[in-house]
Amino acid sequence: MAPTTPRLVVPIDLTKKPWEQKQPLHNRWHPDLPPVAEVKVGEIFRVEMIDWTGGFINDNDSADDVKTVDLCTVHYLSGPIRVLDEEGNPAKPGDLLAVEICNLGPLPGAEWGYSGIFDRENGGGFLTDHFPGAAKAIWYFEGIYTHSPHIPGVRFPGLTHPGIIGTAPSTELLQIWNERERELVETGLQSMKLCEVLHTRPLANLPTPKSCLLGKIEEGTPEWDKIASEAARTVPGRENGGNCDIKNLSRGSKIYLPVFVDGANLSTGDMHFSQGDGEVSFCGAIEMSGFLELKCEIIKDGMREYLTPMGPTPLHVNPIFEIGPVEPRFSEWLVFEGISVDEHGKQHYLDATVAYKRAVLNAIDYLSKFGYTKEQVYILLSCCPSEGRLSGIVDCPNACATLAIPTSIFDQDIRPKSSKIPMGPRVVKKPDVLKCAYDGNLPITKNPGGST
Amino acid sequence: MAPTTPRLVVPIDLTKKPWEQKQPLHNRWHPDLPPVAEVKVGEIFRVEMIDWTGGFINDNDSADDVKTVDLCTVHYLSGPIRVLDEEGNPAKPGDLLAVEICNLGPLPGAEWGYSGIFDRENGGGFLTDHFPGAAKAIWYFEGIYTHSPHIPGVRFPGLTHPGIIGTAPSTELLQIWNERERELVETGLQSMKLCEVLHTRPLANLPTPKSCLLGKIEEGTPEWDKIASEAARTVPGRENGGNCDIKNLSRGSKIYLPVFVDGANLSTGDMHFSQGDGEVSFCGAIEMSGFLELKCEIIKDGMREYLTPMGPTPLHVNPIFEIGPVEPRFSEWLVFEGISVDEHGKQHYLDATVAYKRAVLNAIDYLSKFGYTKEQVYILLSCCPSEGRLSGIVDCPNACATLAIPTSIFDQDIRPKSSKIPMGPRVVKKPDVLKCAYDGNLPITKNPGGST
Amino acid sequence: MAPTTPRLVVPIDLTKKPWEQKQPLHNRWHPDLPPVAEVKVGEIFRVEMIDWTGGFINDNDSADDVKTVDLCTVHYLSGPIRVLDEEGNPAKPGDLLAVEICNLGPLPGAEWGYSGIFDRENGGGFLTDHFPGAAKAIWYFEGIYTHSPHIPGVRFPGLTHPGIIGTAPSTELLQIWNERERELVETGLQSMKLCEVLHTRPLANLPTPKSCLLGKIEEGTPEWDKIASEAARTVPGRENGGNCDIKNLSRGSKIYLPVFVDGANLSTGDMHFSQGDGEVSFCGAIEMSGFLELKCEIIKDGMREYLTPMGPTPLHVNPIFEIGPVEPRFSEWLVFEGISVDEHGKQHYLDATVAYKRAVLNAIDYLSKFGYTKEQVYILLSCCPSEGRLSGIVDCPNACATLAIPTSIFDQDIRPKSSKIPMGPRVVKKPDVLKCAYDGNLPITKNPGGST
Amino acid sequence: MAPTTPRLVVPIDLTKKPWEQKQPLHNRWHPDLPPVAEVKVGEIFRVEMIDWTGGFINDNDSADDVKTVDLCTVHYLSGPIRVLDEEGNPAKPGDLLAVEICNLGPLPGAEWGYSGIFDRENGGGFLTDHFPGAAKAIWYFEGIYTHSPHIPGVRFPGLTHPGIIGTAPSTELLQIWNERERELVETGLQSMKLCEVLHTRPLANLPTPKSCLLGKIEEGTPEWDKIASEAARTVPGRENGGNCDIKNLSRGSKIYLPVFVDGANLSTGDMHFSQGDGEVSFCGAIEMSGFLELKCEIIKDGMREYLTPMGPTPLHVNPIFEIGPVEPRFSEWLVFEGISVDEHGKQHYLDATVAYKRAVLNAIDYLSKFGYTKEQVYILLSCCPSEGRLSGIVDCPNACATLAIPTSIFDQDIRPKSSKIPMGPRVVKKPDVLKCAYDGNLPITKNPGGST
Repeated sequence: MAPTTPRLVVPIDLTKKPWEQKQPLHNRWHPDLPPVAEVKVGEIFRVEMIDWTGGFINDNDSADDVKTVDLCTVHYLSGPIRVLDEEGNPAKPGDLLAVEICNLGPLPGAEWGYSGIFDRENGGGFLTDHFPGAAKAIWYFEGIYTHSPHIPGVRFPGLTHPGIIGTAPSTELLQIWNERERELVETGLQSMKLCEVLHTRPLANLPTPKSCLLGKIEEGTPEWDKIASEAARTVPGRENGGNCDIKNLSRGSKIYLPVFVDGANLSTGDMHFSQGDGEVSFCGAIEMSGFLELKCEIIKDGMREYLTPMGPTPLHVNPIFEIGPVEPRFSEWLVFEGISVDEHGKQHYLDATVAYKRAVLNAIDYLSKFGYTKEQVYILLSCCPSEGRLSGIVDCPNACATLAIPTSIFDQDIRPKSSKIPMGPRVVKKPDVLKCAYDGNLPITKNPGGST
Repeated sequence: MAPTTPRLVVPIDLTKKPWEQKQPLHNRWHPDLPPVAEVKVGEIFRVEMIDWTGGFINDNDSADDVKTVDLCTVHYLSGPIRVLDEEGNPAKPGDLLAVEICNLGPLPGAEWGYSGIFDRENGGGFLTDHFPGAAKAIWYFEGIYTHSPHIPGVRFPGLTHPGIIGTAPSTELLQIWNERERELVETGLQSMKLCEVLHTRPLANLPTPKSCLLGKIEEGTPEWDKIASEAARTVPGRENGGNCDIKNLSRGSKIYLPVFVDGANLSTGDMHFSQGDGEVSFCGAIEMSGFLELKCEIIKDGMREYLTPMGPTPLHVNPIFEIGPVEPRFSEWLVFEGISVDEHGKQHYLDATVAYKRAVLNAIDYLSKFGYTKEQVYILLSCCPSEGRLSGIVDCPNACATLAIPTSIFDQDIRPKSSKIPMGPRVVKKPDVLKCAYDGNLPITKNPGGST
Repeated sequence: MAPTTPRLVVPIDLTKKPWEQKQPLHNRWHPDLPPVAEVKVGEIFRVEMIDWTGGFINDNDSADDVKTVDLCTVHYLSGPIRVLDEEGNPAKPGDLLAVEICNLGPLPGAEWGYSGIFDRENGGGFLTDHFPGAAKAIWYFEGIYTHSPHIPGVRFPGLTHPGIIGTAPSTELLQIWNERERELVETGLQSMKLCEVLHTRPLANLPTPKSCLLGKIEEGTPEWDKIASEAARTVPGRENGGNCDIKNLSRGSKIYLPVFVDGANLSTGDMHFSQGDGEVSFCGAIEMSGFLELKCEIIKDGMREYLTPMGPTPLHVNPIFEIGPVEPRFSEWLVFEGISVDEHGKQHYLDATVAYKRAVLNAIDYLSKFGYTKEQVYILLSCCPSEGRLSGIVDCPNACATLAIPTSIFDQDIRPKSSKIPMGPRVVKKPDVLKCAYDGNLPITKNPGGST
Repeated sequence: MAPTTPRLVVPIDLTKKPWEQKQPLHNRWHPDLPPVAEVKVGEIFRVEMIDWTGGFINDNDSADDVKTVDLCTVHYLSGPIRVLDEEGNPAKPGDLLAVEICNLGPLPGAEWGYSGIFDRENGGGFLTDHFPGAAKAIWYFEGIYTHSPHIPGVRFPGLTHPGIIGTAPSTELLQIWNERERELVETGLQSMKLCEVLHTRPLANLPTPKSCLLGKIEEGTPEWDKIASEAARTVPGRENGGNCDIKNLSRGSKIYLPVFVDGANLSTGDMHFSQGDGEVSFCGAIEMSGFLELKCEIIKDGMREYLTPMGPTPLHVNPIFEIGPVEPRFSEWLVFEGISVDEHGKQHYLDATVAYKRAVLNAIDYLSKFGYTKEQVYILLSCCPSEGRLSGIVDCPNACATLAIPTSIFDQDIRPKSSKIPMGPRVVKKPDVLKCAYDGNLPITKNPGGST
């Protein structure tokens, strides 16, 4: 056997539930979750993972599962994996853990994924106020390409990546998280009045024992009760990496994670076949089960050497990432802009979130002229290799955000055109507005939660 | 003469002041500014432009000019240019004006530019609370490449573009702008209390006759007085395009601008030799004088056909852009992340502005370990071809923004590394921290405005 | 199960010999080889394949196997695969078979490959007159990256592809091949005197029953004897595709193959983890076993519609290829040039082969200054993602060929440099000539065949 | 004035003949041509140049000028330019001259170029046996893009470059050139019988005083007579660089040229707005007048340190090139293959020239199905950014060459397609064969030279 055959350290059996897997999964961050595997620096190891909902979403034409999925269950993560140096000593707090993604992909036999819009009563997404109901699109994979029966006329290569990769927080860091997020929930309502555009979503997801899965910790024990009551939810990305949803973390990338506990205790999950910058519809990537082949390096004291805390404690750091030469590259892009004036015409001050929301809304409306429903486009922009940019962030009072879409993913020319004077090299014709029209079959639940 | 030789419609004489130019410049947006030139669709025409400050900033080692420049003077624009269709009829409100950038560059004899940090008392920038004093770096151009005596060890190709390109607003649109920005100024203080991280900058720049330049409108006339009192400042990008600072609008790009007045009345200015996404230090691009060679097309009724108003009136639209295959492409990037927890450890709700600020601060601190002062890095990130992304915008409560920097612009390997196990293909050595150290000569004014 | 899970139609068991596989392999082209599998257009199917020598070359430090491998055994191919249209009818002669490469890679558990120089008595390579002895380098894979213990200081992503993919020839086409190649062997000696630079290699490899493997045809039968005596060897690419060694036929590519027999009878093999243009050392790619996931389409009458015969019969055609957006892209290249003046100073007339030979020799000598032996560089250029270009082919009498090497595959800066005036953005230092010196351990056989 | 404003060292006045220019041009290589300008390392200087024929070809619809142009006049070069080091000492033989191309482009007011097929009696081109008559296409530039009234439906960005850049040969090197090329002319007829596919072209262009232009050397003097009788013609690229026609030597490239005489004596010319690899129709690039902005560096003893002679003398070297990140990049390519079997069905032995000829012929026939004449395609492939690759050069007896064409330069989808099962993301329709048909107006001379 060649020395570089990856060693499988976390296997997944897709016929079993998350809690039935050989190496138990977990859906919370906590320093006391025991490792399920050990790896040495330099070795190639393979981690398999279930989709973020643990198999709750099915390959069918109904969005009911997306509407009803219990957000307290997500995300099911593989790990923690304890990382040892060449002498067999665990990584130490203050080190930097460099994780190279050597390979990744879907699990054999499960070459499909899904993208969804969450109901406004179940967490919603970036545009919940515009798209309150749940919807779902299924995607099938043909090697690196994907297409969907629910969004016809589109095919693109995936820039596959794990949505979540992170190290375990220390007790102190966990406490910082819980305090600042609780404060937001308690005081945020007031600020939300000023930012009404986003007001229906949960402000934060605080710790709860509900649907908690804690790896090797047995439910019903005092230890379980303690951890479940304080372990951090996995929804937001934080100092340990976590759910950062950076779509470029694909083959050949390297991730530099701070180490907060002995052994680093690396966990990963939430595989995305493809995602657009922002993952705007929340369940917006093409979610799937899959595998990672990884190689670790420990940079001794690297956290102290390379990461400058940007906050009141030495723990207020963020990971660093390195991206290599193997991404799909597109030549031509159509770019939509948004400024920080909201849909009601109200001026916001350098608010990049509002600006990006406008850019996404502009793109949705534009593309809906080419035969798509707006829900289809909302999902598409969420999962195709679109790029969301902070183009201008200083020109008071308008932040300028842009959303760039590679034109070659469509089977029609989506550029604005005049029938009179072609400027570019392509055939100029009136867009056939109905060609790709989707006859109402995109799985959308009829009654958005909370509507009557 | 070949039929494609560009016709010079707005010449610039760099030995003269903005108000002495042959085709008078303007520094405000208003429907009643008379065109200074006419062009037909399909013809290639050349527009020259002065730098945004009209020549106020000099090629020297003092930041005093950046500290004292009068913000009421910016940006000096070339135009308006009236666009006619093939029959000689002007573009009409409701049309879409497609402007292709055929070529651009610095003006011969002026192959230099500058990047600056504005003093906190003179408008500041994205990180004014961290970098209150004015600073300046001069950049020299060698064809497509640039380097600075003030930031040694860096050289990169410019993705040159106009920071500002836009059409004239209609009276109605101008009124919308003035109302919403005035409201922000009047009510914004309250919301600013909640967003204290950005609190020292002007909320908006409202109309003022001070330093107003109105093209062919003669100062002292009633017409001048009226226009000057209501014309919009040029700082923010708005529905007409304007100062959108999209760094990819370079050679081969096409810009689809809505037409609000007869003839479209296209104006452009604020040439950037290069800019990073966000232009974070405000005067952050490599600012220069320069020229554009443009070609226009009118898409009849295109505004109505392609742009969906996203607001209370049909005027609440944004331009669309198209980007082609001729950008510089970099293979390897180092990526910094920020989440919406501010430097004081406070949790914000999906605030992409806060997240991007953190990403930029992280990058500045990191790069300062390689021999640069933080001011040098702040300026560098503002003007090099860095990419700012909205990576995650839905994972409550943390927005995740990233800043990606092409590693090949540096003359040293800036990646984190361990002396023990090289993972990548390059020489692994301890970074020579002092190698590029800049001996305090970056022009920084000693006393930031307002400090004592 | 998702509808896009690839169906395995040709499995490989690496513990077995080529003739022991479940679906018998073949190493010759002939119209009468029976298909081993059937596929329908539109379905995704998986073909596994053994390395071109059928497992003869081992993962060790000796080049003896490369020296003694029997060239009559190569290349072991998987197939033929019969392709049916949607109605179940086989592809017909005159159709075009479009084969999309959805995915590919090494076989699990066999993440390694080899590159070799053939001994001049065993076929040799492009530079046999310079490098007469056999040599071998082993490469280990880490996901998309590879590195070799025999060529230190180099690591690169593979552009993995099948060296051979083709359809079965018709009887008439096979006869054309045999006649023209036999004529070359019989008359070529004369012309070779004029092209002495290449004179030690076989002119062509004519049919021979020696080491013949014919799939389902049983050895010892009259049918076997007939086919073995006339079946074409697999070394050269021909009208049916075959061993074209086009390094860009990787994920997302599409290959349009002419159909000469009912069902097309597609075969494939000779997987390369990576190859440089030209595969100059002959066994020069990183040879490996592996798998392909394919999807077929039949373009009815497409051969007649799209391929123009360029020769005396309608069969004198060549395949067409389509390459997509997912290749690794490198930003910076060092380029070596050769002109059609040979190493003896003799002028040749627009001979691109001589010119490319010079370019390769120039590159080998140059890179040997950075601590490598010439054999190491010869192998490296043969298998890394180098690009060989026909830059000028009309400027009598000199053809100009170029070989471009991506600089980032090395762990040192390989560009020419002066210690005085750095022009580019990188550290300028004297190249450390001995740093990567390889202490004679590259497996090279001591006595090239034929030497005394 | 900024320190990086290029100094104009060779101006061109397009209203004057080559021999009337302020800095006299030259059309031969010789060590005794006196420099017309001096530059120092590190300074940016501008060299203007006339098109290769010195203005003989006109912007009109007749190919008569292409048919009758005197080949003894080409190429008119600007220079020689003497290069000094920082102390003012000239570059020395044995040094390496690094020339960075900072910027380049057409001359203002001359934004057009031409591509031609040479008549078989006037030198011909790569496919003279197929296309014996002269033809011409005019191209107009719109910034970085070009289009031609003679080849409709095509528009692409130019990768502009000088076809010729080189240093002066030493007396010894010149003698080597003359001897080897004379020997080819004298003995080549014999070998040509074996390579009849290329037989109608001149074997080499030997020195001749006819139409000789020698810069500052005055005609009629003994010095002129001597130099004219021995100076090398400029058609082929050689050890000094010269007419290497490498299409990627555009903005940001660096060229490392060997120095053979004191001061290096750099000359350049033959600007190409765009060229395909191989420049197959000979006058096949988009030929134009233009300018270069250059910066030189001298690598002391660099020729000895970096260039290994590959031949009987230390002078048998070739330049090295470096290519940077600013090329246009295309995502999708259609690739045509050729093998070393000629159009008559004859097998050649690893002959890359024959293989590339087949690839070009295949591409021409294919594209002529989309409404073009074959002459139009021949010219187009010669000047568009096509890539010619030596894909396989070892698989006896077939060399495999490929020609890759970026699909986005056409205004129609040129890929093979079936009306039944679309595989890719685009609209599948029958190609509209007549859409781009060119009504016989491509300027082709009626009677190819030598025909009756």
